[in-house]
Amino acid sequence: MQLGLIGLGKMGFNMRARLREGGHDVVGYDPRPEVSDVASLADLAAALPAPRVVWVMVPSGTITDQTITELAQVLGDGDLVIDGGNSRYTEDAPHAKLLAEKGIAFIDAGVSGGIWGLNEGYGLMVGGDDADVARAMPIFDALRPPGPVEDGFVHVGPVGAGHFAKMVHNGVEYALMTAYAEGYEMLAAEDLVRDPQAVYQAWSNGTVVRSWLQQLLAKALKEDPGLNDISGYTEDSGEGRWTVEEAIRLRVPVPSIAAALFARFLSRQEDSPTMKAVAALRNQFGGHAVKRVSESG
Amino acid sequence: MQLGLIGLGKMGFNMRARLREGGHDVVGYDPRPEVSDVASLADLAAALPAPRVVWVMVPSGTITDQTITELAQVLGDGDLVIDGGNSRYTEDAPHAKLLAEKGIAFIDAGVSGGIWGLNEGYGLMVGGDDADVARAMPIFDALRPPGPVEDGFVHVGPVGAGHFAKMVHNGVEYALMTAYAEGYEMLAAEDLVRDPQAVYQAWSNGTVVRSWLQQLLAKALKEDPGLNDISGYTEDSGEGRWTVEEAIRLRVPVPSIAAALFARFLSRQEDSPTMKAVAALRNQFGGHAVKRVSESG
Amino acid sequence: MQLGLIGLGKMGFNMRARLREGGHDVVGYDPRPEVSDVASLADLAAALPAPRVVWVMVPSGTITDQTITELAQVLGDGDLVIDGGNSRYTEDAPHAKLLAEKGIAFIDAGVSGGIWGLNEGYGLMVGGDDADVARAMPIFDALRPPGPVEDGFVHVGPVGAGHFAKMVHNGVEYALMTAYAEGYEMLAAEDLVRDPQAVYQAWSNGTVVRSWLQQLLAKALKEDPGLNDISGYTEDSGEGRWTVEEAIRLRVPVPSIAAALFARFLSRQEDSPTMKAVAALRNQFGGHAVKRVSESG
Amino acid sequence: MQLGLIGLGKMGFNMRARLREGGHDVVGYDPRPEVSDVASLADLAAALPAPRVVWVMVPSGTITDQTITELAQVLGDGDLVIDGGNSRYTEDAPHAKLLAEKGIAFIDAGVSGGIWGLNEGYGLMVGGDDADVARAMPIFDALRPPGPVEDGFVHVGPVGAGHFAKMVHNGVEYALMTAYAEGYEMLAAEDLVRDPQAVYQAWSNGTVVRSWLQQLLAKALKEDPGLNDISGYTEDSGEGRWTVEEAIRLRVPVPSIAAALFARFLSRQEDSPTMKAVAALRNQFGGHAVKRVSESG
Repeated sequence: MQLGLIGLGKMGFNMRARLREGGHDVVGYDPRPEVSDVASLADLAAALPAPRVVWVMVPSGTITDQTITELAQVLGDGDLVIDGGNSRYTEDAPHAKLLAEKGIAFIDAGVSGGIWGLNEGYGLMVGGDDADVARAMPIFDALRPPGPVEDGFVHVGPVGAGHFAKMVHNGVEYALMTAYAEGYEMLAAEDLVRDPQAVYQAWSNGTVVRSWLQQLLAKALKEDPGLNDISGYTEDSGEGRWTVEEAIRLRVPVPSIAAALFARFLSRQEDSPTMKAVAALRNQFGGHAVKRVSESG
Repeated sequence: MQLGLIGLGKMGFNMRARLREGGHDVVGYDPRPEVSDVASLADLAAALPAPRVVWVMVPSGTITDQTITELAQVLGDGDLVIDGGNSRYTEDAPHAKLLAEKGIAFIDAGVSGGIWGLNEGYGLMVGGDDADVARAMPIFDALRPPGPVEDGFVHVGPVGAGHFAKMVHNGVEYALMTAYAEGYEMLAAEDLVRDPQAVYQAWSNGTVVRSWLQQLLAKALKEDPGLNDISGYTEDSGEGRWTVEEAIRLRVPVPSIAAALFARFLSRQEDSPTMKAVAALRNQFGGHAVKRVSESG
Repeated sequence: MQLGLIGLGKMGFNMRARLREGGHDVVGYDPRPEVSDVASLADLAAALPAPRVVWVMVPSGTITDQTITELAQVLGDGDLVIDGGNSRYTEDAPHAKLLAEKGIAFIDAGVSGGIWGLNEGYGLMVGGDDADVARAMPIFDALRPPGPVEDGFVHVGPVGAGHFAKMVHNGVEYALMTAYAEGYEMLAAEDLVRDPQAVYQAWSNGTVVRSWLQQLLAKALKEDPGLNDISGYTEDSGEGRWTVEEAIRLRVPVPSIAAALFARFLSRQEDSPTMKAVAALRNQFGGHAVKRVSESG
Repeated sequence: MQLGLIGLGKMGFNMRARLREGGHDVVGYDPRPEVSDVASLADLAAALPAPRVVWVMVPSGTITDQTITELAQVLGDGDLVIDGGNSRYTEDAPHAKLLAEKGIAFIDAGVSGGIWGLNEGYGLMVGGDDADVARAMPIFDALRPPGPVEDGFVHVGPVGAGHFAKMVHNGVEYALMTAYAEGYEMLAAEDLVRDPQAVYQAWSNGTVVRSWLQQLLAKALKEDPGLNDISGYTEDSGEGRWTVEEAIRLRVPVPSIAAALFARFLSRQEDSPTMKAVAALRNQFGGHAVKRVSESG
C-alpha cells in the first residue's frame, strides 16, 4: 500500500527501506533534502491518494507535537496518522483528539529493534481502534519480523497502550542491561576468570540467561576486550524516566528499573554531590580523612 | 567414553540420558536403588576402567563434601572427579587438594539449563587444568548444546573459576527475572493494557528485550493468565546470596542483583518487620493510623 | 497579631492552640462547627482587620485549590495567604498567580513536627517574597521551636521553595525511617541480641545514629516489644512520591529514598505480582516447586 | 579502678583521657613510645594488680588477633579482656575461647562516638557474661555519656552481641548518611533553593528528621558551602560490608543499607565497569554514540 513516512533519521531511514522491500510505496519526508522524497508535509499529503496513511517517526516531544499539529492541517477526513516515535503515552490521547477533530484517525506504535530492525524486523506494540489497526496491518506486517504475527506484534489496547507497552519495554531493557553489566563487572574483577568475554559468549546456548543483549555484550567485549575505549557516561532517553514515574503513579515497586535509571544519572556526574556529603559527614564525626579536591593537583 | 555419574535427581537423571544419547557409557549411582545402576560408590569405582572419570551431581554443601571425601577413598591415581553441582566456588580448592593427595584430578563445572537441558543441551562453565579439561571434553561435548563450542561451553580458568562463573550467571539470572517481573507488574496494573501476556509474547522477535526468560514468562502467562494460582513466595538457592557476598568482597556494586535477592527474602515473610517498624514510627510522630493486627479478625 | 486559620484538623487544631499561647489572635475556620470559630470563609474574612493574614492548613490537592480559589474571592488587595499544608511545590506558583490578580500575596510554608509540634514547636520552611515573609514573621516565631531562629525556621527562596524543601524533608524522612527499621529487623533476627529495644534505647546518647526518630523507635518498641500488634501495611503521602519524581526531573540519583517509597508500595500488596512472576519463571525453567494459591486452603 | 588500655590511636588516646577524668587509673600501651605509658604488654600486665582488666582498642583483624593472643600469654586466671575495637562479632567467640583456656574472661564492646566521645561520652554496646559486665561497669560508666545508663549503654547479650549491635549501628549509620546526602543533592540541584545549608540548619529543631548527623551536615555545609573542596571518594570500614553479609545470612532484606554500601564502592571507581558495559550495549543495539575514552584528550 501507499504511505507517507515523516522522519528519515537513524530509525525512519531504515524503516523506509524495509517497507519498500516489503512491497510498499513509501513517500518519505525529512527536513534534510538529500534524504527526502518530497519538499514539505503539504507535498507529502498531495503525493498520497486519500484516504492516506502517514507514519510519523520524529523525536518525541516538541517535534512530534509540531508534526502532528501540521498534519492536522494538511491531512483530512478518513486519513490515519501513526506515531511510531518514542512519545510518552500520555501525549497520545491529546494527539488523537486533535486529529479526530479533522476526522483523522490515530495509532500509537512502539517500535523496538534499533539499527538491527532493517534486516531482522521491528518489534511492534500498537494502540488504537481495531478498525484502524486492521487498516494499517499491511504496514505492520512489513515492519515486523517474519514468523508468527503474535511473536513480533501486539495490539496492546486503545490509543496510548502501544507507547505505554514500549515505555515498559524500555524500562525493562534498562534493568536487563544493568543486570548483565553487573555480572560483567564481577567477572572482570575476579582473578580466577581469564576472559569475561568467553563467559558471555558461552552463555549463548543452553543457559537460563541467554538473550539478544547477552549476545550483544559478548560481541562488544570481543570488539573491545576490557571496554577500555568506552566511557561509562550513559545518556538516558525519556522512557526510563517515564517508566519510574508511571510506576509511582500505579504504586508498582520497581527497584531494579529505578536502580538502572539512577546508575545512568550517576554515570554523568563528575563527582557525586551525595557522596561528597557522605564524605563530609564521615570527616565531621570520625575525623576520617577526606580526599581534598584541592590536593588532587 | 566411560564415566561414572553420581546423583540421579532432577538434573543428574536427565544428564545420564543425554550422555548415553551422546554415545557415552554411563554408570550412574544414586542412593535410590530404582534409578541407580550400581549399589555403592565402591561398586561404581569397580565398574569403571582406570583411569576413571566421575561426575558428581549432588546437592552442594555437606552432601558434595561427603561424596568427594568418599571418592578420595574409592578412586585412585590418575582418576578425575568433576563437580557439576552448585558448589560455592570457594569449596573447589579444598576439594581439589583433598583429591590431589590421592593423585586424583578435579574440575568444577557450572551447569545451566534446568529441565530443558536434556533436549537443548546444558550451558557449561568449567574450571581446572588444561589437560584435565581436554580429557573430559568428550563429556562436555555431549552435554553442551549443539553448535559452536564457544557458544555453550567455556573453560573459565583454574579450579574454582567454573563455579564462580556459574554463581555470577545465577546472580544475573536473579536480576533478569526481577526486571521482567517488574515490567509484567506494570503492564498488569495499567488499564490501557488488555493482556500483558500478549505483550510478553510479542517481545519474542525484533525487540531489544527478547530472551529465553522473556519467552518463558510469556509461556507462564499463557498457562495461567494473571498468575492467579501462583504465590509470590520464592526460595533462593545459595548462588544469589553468594553473588552478593562475593561482590562485597570484590567491592563491586551490584544494586540490581541485591535488589532481586532481597525481594526473594521479603517474599517469604508473612509481614515485614522493617515495615512494622516504619508503621510504628509514623504512628509515633504523626499520629498516623496503623493497621492493628488485633483488629484484622 | 491577628490571623485567620483555615483547617482545624490534627495539625491546624494544635497550631491554633500554639499560636494563641504565643499571644496571637486567631480566628479559626473548619467545616466542622464544633471546632470552628466562624461559620464560613466570608465570616472569617469579615472578622479580620485588613490587611489580613490567612493561614491555610487543609489537605493538599483539590481542597487546597478550592480554598485558595475561594479566598481569592473573599480577601482583597494587600492581604496575605500562607499555604501551610503539604501542597506539591509546583502548585504554589499557580496559587500565587491566582491570588496576585487580586493583589493578595502568597507564602508557601512547609511544616514539620506532627503531633509533637504543639509543645515542641514546628520546623518551618517557607517560600515567598522577603517583605511578605517579614510581615508573617511573628506568626512563624510563635510556631517554630524556641531557640535560635535559624535552627527551626528557614526562608528557603521564592514562592515554591518552602514546599520543595518540605518535600525533600519528607523524602529524607522516608529513607531515615527505613534505615532504622532495617537495623531493627536485623537486631530482632539475631539470637545473640536479647532485646532490640534496649539497643535502640542505648543509641540515645553518644552514638552517631542518635536522633529523634531513633528515640521514637525505642519508644514504640517499649510500648509494643516485637511490634506484634502493628501491621507492616504503610500508607505513603504525596511527598515521598513527589520527591522521587522531582529527583528524576533533576537527574539526581536517590536510591535510598526510592527504596523506602517502593517498600511502602509493597507493604500494601497482598501478594507481589512481581514475585508471582519470578516464581512462575523459576517453575518454568527449573521445575522448581511453586506455592500454589489453590493449595493454601 | 585500675585498668590497662592497649592502643592509643584516635579513639584510644581520647578514651584514656576520659577514663582518667572519670577517676580511673589507666596504664596505656601503644607501640609508639611517645604516647605509651609502658614499654610492652608484659610491662602493662606487670603494672596492674591482679585480677586485671585490660581494654583492647586496636585495629580489627590481624592486630586484634595478635594482641589477644599475646594477652593470653601475659595475663592469667581471673583477668578480664575487653575488645572495644571494631572486630567482626564472629571473631569474639574464638577470642573468648582462647582466653578462657587461661581462665581469662572476655567482653566485646562496640563503641560509638568518634572524636566527639572525649567530651560527650561514648555510646556503648557490650556482650559477655553478667558477672563480667558488672565487674567492668565502673569503666563503662566513665566512658558512656552522662544521664540514664540505659540511654548510652546496653548489655546486648552474650559474647559477640556487643559487636553485632555495633555492626548494625554502623550499617544504619551508612544508610542514614546516604539519606541525608541524597536530600542535600536534591536541594543543591533545585534553583528555587537559595542555600541548602540554611535548610539543613533549620531542620535542627521541631522537624522529624532532626538528628546529630543532620546537625553535622549543616556544620559541614557551613564550613564549605557547596562542598567544593571535598571529593566524593569514600572509604568503607568493615562494618558496612559485614552488615550486608550478616543480613544475607539472616535473610533480612536491607535495600537501603546495601545501597549506601554500593554507593561507597562506586565512589572509589574512576569509571564504572558496569556503566561501561551498559554504554557498550546501547552502542551495539541502538548505534547510540558512546563517549570514547580515546577522544577525551
